[in-house]
Amino acid sequence: MERRGAGRTEFLRELRSFLPEAAILSEPEDLKPFECDALSAYTVLPWLAVLPDTIEQVRMVLRLSHEHEVPVVARGAGTGLSGGASPVANGVLLSLAKFNRILEIDPANRIARVQPGVRNLAISEAAAPFGLYYAPDPSSQVACTIGGNVAENSGGVHCLKYGLTVHNVLQVTLLTIEGELLTLGSLGLDGPGYDLLAVANGSEGLLGVIVEVAVKLLPLPETARTLLAAFDSVEAAGEAVAGLIGAGLLPAGLEMMDNLTLRATEAFVHAGYPVEAAAVVLCESDGMAEQVEAEIAKARAVLATHGAAEVRESRDEAERRKFWAGRKAAFPAVGRIAADYYCIDGTIPRRRLAEVLGRIGELSDRYGLAVGNVFHAGDGNLHPLILYDASHPGELERAEALGEEILTLCVEVGGTVTGEHGVGIEKLNPMCIQFGVPELRQFYALKAAFDAKGLLNPGKAVPTLARCAEFGQVHVHGGRLRHPELERF
Amino acid sequence: MERRGAGRTEFLRELRSFLPEAAILSEPEDLKPFECDALSAYTVLPWLAVLPDTIEQVRMVLRLSHEHEVPVVARGAGTGLSGGASPVANGVLLSLAKFNRILEIDPANRIARVQPGVRNLAISEAAAPFGLYYAPDPSSQVACTIGGNVAENSGGVHCLKYGLTVHNVLQVTLLTIEGELLTLGSLGLDGPGYDLLAVANGSEGLLGVIVEVAVKLLPLPETARTLLAAFDSVEAAGEAVAGLIGAGLLPAGLEMMDNLTLRATEAFVHAGYPVEAAAVVLCESDGMAEQVEAEIAKARAVLATHGAAEVRESRDEAERRKFWAGRKAAFPAVGRIAADYYCIDGTIPRRRLAEVLGRIGELSDRYGLAVGNVFHAGDGNLHPLILYDASHPGELERAEALGEEILTLCVEVGGTVTGEHGVGIEKLNPMCIQFGVPELRQFYALKAAFDAKGLLNPGKAVPTLARCAEFGQVHVHGGRLRHPELERF
Repeated sequence: MERRGAGRTEFLRELRSFLPEAAILSEPEDLKPFECDALSAYTVLPWLAVLPDTIEQVRMVLRLSHEHEVPVVARGAGTGLSGGASPVANGVLLSLAKFNRILEIDPANRIARVQPGVRNLAISEAAAPFGLYYAPDPSSQVACTIGGNVAENSGGVHCLKYGLTVHNVLQVTLLTIEGELLTLGSLGLDGPGYDLLAVANGSEGLLGVIVEVAVKLLPLPETARTLLAAFDSVEAAGEAVAGLIGAGLLPAGLEMMDNLTLRATEAFVHAGYPVEAAAVVLCESDGMAEQVEAEIAKARAVLATHGAAEVRESRDEAERRKFWAGRKAAFPAVGRIAADYYCIDGTIPRRRLAEVLGRIGELSDRYGLAVGNVFHAGDGNLHPLILYDASHPGELERAEALGEEILTLCVEVGGTVTGEHGVGIEKLNPMCIQFGVPELRQFYALKAAFDAKGLLNPGKAVPTLARCAEFGQVHVHGGRLRHPELERF
Repeated sequence: MERRGAGRTEFLRELRSFLPEAAILSEPEDLKPFECDALSAYTVLPWLAVLPDTIEQVRMVLRLSHEHEVPVVARGAGTGLSGGASPVANGVLLSLAKFNRILEIDPANRIARVQPGVRNLAISEAAAPFGLYYAPDPSSQVACTIGGNVAENSGGVHCLKYGLTVHNVLQVTLLTIEGELLTLGSLGLDGPGYDLLAVANGSEGLLGVIVEVAVKLLPLPETARTLLAAFDSVEAAGEAVAGLIGAGLLPAGLEMMDNLTLRATEAFVHAGYPVEAAAVVLCESDGMAEQVEAEIAKARAVLATHGAAEVRESRDEAERRKFWAGRKAAFPAVGRIAADYYCIDGTIPRRRLAEVLGRIGELSDRYGLAVGNVFHAGDGNLHPLILYDASHPGELERAEALGEEILTLCVEVGGTVTGEHGVGIEKLNPMCIQFGVPELRQFYALKAAFDAKGLLNPGKAVPTLARCAEFGQVHVHGGRLRHPELERF
C-alpha cells in the first residue's frame, strides 16, 4: 500500500489544479454514498470520488489516473444490480451525476443526443411533446441513467419487440483511460469499421467512460392493449409463451408471474390478480388500432389452445395500467414477504421455459428455499427470486449456491448467465461456466486494446483465468468474496 | 520476395501433409477464378488457393500460415462489391465453398445452424417447410453465402423492418489466425462478456475465419402488399419517404427509383412502370391481413399528402412481384444503357434524402456524367449508379472522383461511406474522411488483439494512417491503386 500514501497527496494536488474543491470528495463521510451500487451486499469506500462537469475535466481525471496508475470506476445513478459501479478501495470513483443535460431532441431524424447522466425516463419525457419515446425501459427507468444503461446493455419489458439498449443506441462518445475521445457508431443506420459501438454496449465500464449518447426515438404507439391469462401450471404458462411466439406474434410485452409472486403482489398493490392461478401471463400489443385488434384476437386464440383457465382483456388505459401495476411492483412486493431475497438474472431459449421452470421448482425443494418467478418470458429472461433469511446461519450461502445452480442450468440449456443486469462482481464465477479459455483470452486481448494497464473498473465483468481455476476447485459463494483485483491498488 | 520462393516449397509440402492434392491449387490457370470478387476492376492472382472441407483442415491452414507469416484471404461466393475477397499476391486464398451444409433447422427455437458456404437463399428454402425464413435479403441472395453476409454485415430490401445481418445472427464460430476456435454470441437473446459477435459482423475477414453460423428464423408473413407511387420530382419522393417513416410506419420494404433507372428497367423487364415519373417509391407492408390493410391505408394517405401523382396498389401476389421485378433488375438494366457504371453505396440520415438527392444531381451536371438512383430509401442507404464509358480517356477517373464526392457528401450530412457493400479495398480513402486518427488507432488495436501479425485479409476495410496522410495530399482514385499492404509479402 506504499504508493497509495505516497501518490495520494500528489494526485490530489494535481486534481485540484483543474477540478474545483467541491468536485473532489476525500473524507469518509463524503465517500459513504458511493460505497456500493444496488448490489448492496458489498460495500467498499473508494479512495476518492470526483464529480466533474465537463468532458475536458473527465479527460484530465483519466489522464492523471493513467499516469499514476490509479484505477477508475465510473458511476451513473448507482442502480445497477450486479455491482458494476461498486468502487475500488484505492481507486477513483468517477461520478457522472453532473452530466445530466439533454443536448438535443431531433424529431425529424428521430434522434436524442444526451449526456450520460440523463435518466432513462427523462429522455421519453423530453421526446413526448413530439409524439416520440425511447423504447428500452428497465424497471429502474425513473432513476437509472442512459450511460449506465449503455454500460450494462439494459433491457426491459419492451425489449422483446423493440430490442435491448444496444439496438436503440446510434452513437456513443467514449473517453479512453488515456484521454482519447472516440466517436463510436454513426447517425446513419449502418457504419463501416469494426462495430466498437456494440462493444461499448454492455462493456460495464471496462473499456472507457461514456460522455455522450445518441439514441433512437420511436413514435408513441397509437394504442396499446393487454391480455392477462391465468394458468393451472407454470409449465402450461411457459408453453403458452412459446406458443405465442411460435404463432408469429411479437408482443410489446410478454411477462410471466408464478403463484408465489402473484400472492405477494396482490397483497401489496391489490391489482385484482387471480391469486389461485399457478401462473399468470401478461401479453401486450401496441401499434395501430386495427393491428392491435388483430394481434389481441390471435393471442387470445393461442392462449386458449394452451389451456388458459381465464383470459382478461384491458378495456381501457386505466385497466391496462392496473394489469401492469402488480408486475412492476413485484420485486418490492416479494421483499415484503421475505426477510431477504436474491434476484437471479439468466436468459434461456424460450422453448425451454416450461422445462427450466420445472427444474427450478425441483432445485427450490432440494435447497428448502422458496423461489418466486416473475420475468420477461418473451425474452426467455428469467428473474428467479430466491427467498431466504440472512439471520438464519447458512441460509445466505444456500441461497447463493442455489442461484449458481440455476445459472448453470441456464447455460446447460443453451442460454446465458445474464439477461440484462450485467456481470459486475456478482457473476464472475458463472462467467467461468459460460465461457472457455479461448473466449476469455480474447476478452483480455480486447480489454488490453482499450486499457492496457487494466485501470478501468478492475475486477468486474470478466473473470481472470486464476479466478476460474480457483472456482473450479474451491466453490466461491456467488462471487461475493472480494475479488483479488480489488486489492490490487 | 526472397522468402516467397524459399517458403513456398516447404509451405506446400506441409499443406500436402493434411490436405488432399485436389484441395490445393497452385497453377495460374487454376487460380484464375479467384483473381477477383465482384469488384472486378482489381485482379490479382493469389499465391495459392486451398479448398478445405473440415474445420480441422481450416485450423491447420491458418496455423501453418501464421507460422510462415503468410497472409490469408477467406472467400465465400465472391459476390462482394467492395473487393473484400480480392486475393493477396503472395497469400493463400482460403475458399469455404465446400462448407455448404445446413447443419440444423430448429423450428421450435426458430434457429438455423449452417456452414459458412451455405447460400443466403438456401437457408430460407430449407426453413420454408416450417413456415419460417431468414430475413436479410441482399440482391445477390441466390448466390452469396452466409459467411460472406456476416463478414460484410449485408443488408437488403427487408432490413429496414427486420434489421441487418448483425441483427439476425445469434452465434458465430470463428477460427483465429492462430487456430483458436471461438464461439461468439449465444442462442439466448442476450449474452454477457464483450460483444465479439457484433465485432465479427462486418469485420470483412480481418479478425478470423467464420466456420459456422447460427441465424434467427422468422415466421413467413401471412400476407404482403405493395404500393407503387409516382412523383414529379426526386425531392418530393424523398420527402414522401421521410414522411412515411415520420408517420410511424415501418414498411417491410421502402425503395426508390429515379427516372433514369425507371426507363432503363422498363425497357429491360417491362414491369409497367410510369416512365414519365421523376421518381417512383415502392412501399411494402407484410404481416397479418388486418395489419397490412391498416398500414397500406395509412401509407396511401401519407403518399397523397406528399403529392404523389399516382399510387398503384398490388391486387395480388403476381402484381406485387411485377412491382418488384424492375427494382430487382435495376442494376443489370442500367448496365444495358451504359458502357460502364460505378455503383456507390453510402448511408445518410433519412431526413436528408431530398437534399442529398438534389446535390447528387448538381454533382452529376458538374462532372458531366449521368447518375441513376435506385436504393433502399427507408434505410437512407443510397446506391447512386454513375454511368461512364471507360473507353473515353479520363471518364473512369471522373467517375471515381464523382463517387468520392458523393461519399464525402454522405459523411457531411451525418451518414457513412457504406451501407451494406463494405469497405474492402474500394473505400479505404473515404474511410479516412469518415474516421479520425483516434478511431483508426482503436481499430488497429482491436485488429492486433485478434491478429497481431496482420495476416488476415491485409490491406482491406481499415486504411493505414500513412494511407490517409497520402490521401490527404495526393488524391487517390477511389482506392483503386494497389494498397501498400498488398505488396507486403
